[in-house]
Amino acid sequence: MQITFLGTAGSYPTRERNPSAIALDMEKDVLLLDCGEGTQRQFYQSPVSFMRVRRIFITHFHGDHYLGLPGLVQTMGLNQRTEPLDIYGPKETTRFVEAILNSGYSYTHFPIQTHEIAPGERVAFDAYSVTAAEARHSVPALAYRIDEKERRGRFKADEARALGVHGSDFALLEEGKPVTTRTGKLVLPEQVLGPPRPGRSVVYSGDTRPAPEIIRLAEEADVLIHEATFLEELKSLADAWGHSTALGAATVAQKAGVRALYLTHFSARYPELTGSEAEAHQAYPSAIAAHDLLELQVHQR
Amino acid sequence: MQITFLGTAGSYPTRERNPSAIALDMEKDVLLLDCGEGTQRQFYQSPVSFMRVRRIFITHFHGDHYLGLPGLVQTMGLNQRTEPLDIYGPKETTRFVEAILNSGYSYTHFPIQTHEIAPGERVAFDAYSVTAAEARHSVPALAYRIDEKERRGRFKADEARALGVHGSDFALLEEGKPVTTRTGKLVLPEQVLGPPRPGRSVVYSGDTRPAPEIIRLAEEADVLIHEATFLEELKSLADAWGHSTALGAATVAQKAGVRALYLTHFSARYPELTGSEAEAHQAYPSAIAAHDLLELQVHQR
Repeated sequence: MQITFLGTAGSYPTRERNPSAIALDMEKDVLLLDCGEGTQRQFYQSPVSFMRVRRIFITHFHGDHYLGLPGLVQTMGLNQRTEPLDIYGPKETTRFVEAILNSGYSYTHFPIQTHEIAPGERVAFDAYSVTAAEARHSVPALAYRIDEKERRGRFKADEARALGVHGSDFALLEEGKPVTTRTGKLVLPEQVLGPPRPGRSVVYSGDTRPAPEIIRLAEEADVLIHEATFLEELKSLADAWGHSTALGAATVAQKAGVRALYLTHFSARYPELTGSEAEAHQAYPSAIAAHDLLELQVHQR
Repeated sequence: MQITFLGTAGSYPTRERNPSAIALDMEKDVLLLDCGEGTQRQFYQSPVSFMRVRRIFITHFHGDHYLGLPGLVQTMGLNQRTEPLDIYGPKETTRFVEAILNSGYSYTHFPIQTHEIAPGERVAFDAYSVTAAEARHSVPALAYRIDEKERRGRFKADEARALGVHGSDFALLEEGKPVTTRTGKLVLPEQVLGPPRPGRSVVYSGDTRPAPEIIRLAEEADVLIHEATFLEELKSLADAWGHSTALGAATVAQKAGVRALYLTHFSARYPELTGSEAEAHQAYPSAIAAHDLLELQVHQR
C-alpha cells in the first residue's frame, strides 16, 4: 500500500504544486483520490502508471479536484484501455462527469460508470472498502476512508520445514489449505501462519473545515491526509470558505488517534510550509506537509 | 510581438511536453492559441501573465487543444479578473465551452463571450485581426492567421533635431501631428517619420493534413507554426488521422513563402526531434522544432 501525492496545491496550481490528486497503490490496482487539472502529466513524473487506476473517488466538484478527469480518461483511451473505470463522488457526480466528458469530440471505448455516494455509505471491493463521510465545505463534499481487508497471517517457512512440509506445498498452506507431508502427517494452515494482519487504512479529508464526522471516520487510521489550506492567522477565511488551518487539521488527527498525519491543499500564499508544519506540531507533533510526488509506504502495524 | 510555446505535445502530454497552447504577446494584450490541459500552470513557468489574455482562439475541440480552459478561467476569476474574455472557435464552440465551464460548481464573475467563426472569416480588433481557414482534420477545425495592423514609421529623432524641433514636441510628431519650431517653422510628421511599417503576421495551423487553404492563409507570413505530428515513415497514419508529417509541414511553409517555420504537436513516439527537423529541412532548410517554453520575438521586416 503506497501513497503518491500527485498534487498538493489549494485552489489553483503554482510553479511547484499541481492541484489535488493522490494515487493509492493497492497492489492489485490503483485508486485515485481526486483528479485536478494536470494529474495525467503528474503520473508521468511518478512511479505509478495511470493505466492501473481502476477507481477514482472525487471529493467534490470544485475545479481543482476534478478538471483532470477528461484528459486522463482520453489518454487512457488513446492507450487502448479496455477495462472499465468507475468514478465515485457526492451527489451530482453523474451530471458533472457526463458534462465534462462530453464537452468536445471524444472517442472513449472502454466502459465508464459513475456512482453517487451518500455520507455514511460504504462501498466494498475485493481487497478493500471505501467509506464516505460528509465534509464541511461550501458545496456537497465527501471525505473518504479506505480500509484494506484483513489479510492472512505471515507464512512461517521455517516452522513448515520443521514439520516436514515440502517446499512445493508451501503455496497451499499460504492459501489456507491443509497438506499432508511425505510421512503422512497432516499439517494445518494455522500451524504455520501468524495471526491475521489487520488491513491498513488511509483517510483523505478533501476540502473541509475541521469536522467531527471526519474525526469519527479517521478513528485510529494508519494515515490521515487532511487539507490545511490556511494558517491560524487566516482562520476567519478558513471558516468562511470551508477550509482548515494547519492547527485545525492537526487537532482532527490528534482527536482521531491516527498513526500519521500528512497535510495538503496549501494556499499559494505559503510557498514555504515551515509555518504550516510548526503550527500543526502544536497539536500533532509528527505532522508532515506533503509535497508533489512525495511517496509514502503505509506499513503494517 | 512575442510568441511563447506553452505546450508542444501531440494528443497527450509527456514528461517534457504539455498539450497545445501558444501565447502571442501583442504588447497591449495577449492572445492565446489553443488551451490544452495544464496551460495555466505552463504560464507560471513563462514570462507571460495569463491575466493579460484578452482573447482565446481554439482550433478544434479535441481534448489536447481545449481542456485547459475551465481551470484557466477559474483561476482568472480567483485572481479577481473583471475584464471580459472572448473565446473563438469553429462551430459548436458555444455548446462545448458552456458544457465544460458548467461541469462543476463555478464562481466566475467576469463576462465570457463565445464566438463561432466560419472558415474564411476575419475578425478585427484595435491592433490586429484574425483570419480563419478550414483545416483538414477529423473534426471541424480552423487554422488562424494573426495580422498586426500597419504601424507608423520609425521616428527619426536626429532629423527632427536638425529641423529645430524641441524634444518636448517629439511625441506629437510621433503621433502624426504637425508642430511649429521656436523659430516659427512648421514641421510635418512625414518629414521625420520613416515609411509605415507593415504589420507582422503569425499563422497557426492547429491539427491538419497539409492543406492548400493553409498555404493561402500563410502566404508570406512572418512565422508559420505548423503541426508535425509524425514523420514520413508514418504518413499513412498522418493521412488517416488528419495530421501532417514534418516534411508535409515544411512543404506548406515553402509553398507559402513564409519567413520562419516552427514545428509543434509532436507524437510521443519522438522524444528527440532531430528526425523531425532533418525531415523538414528537405523542404524548408531553417525549420525549427519548438519545445515547451520556447520564446520567440517576431521581428519587424
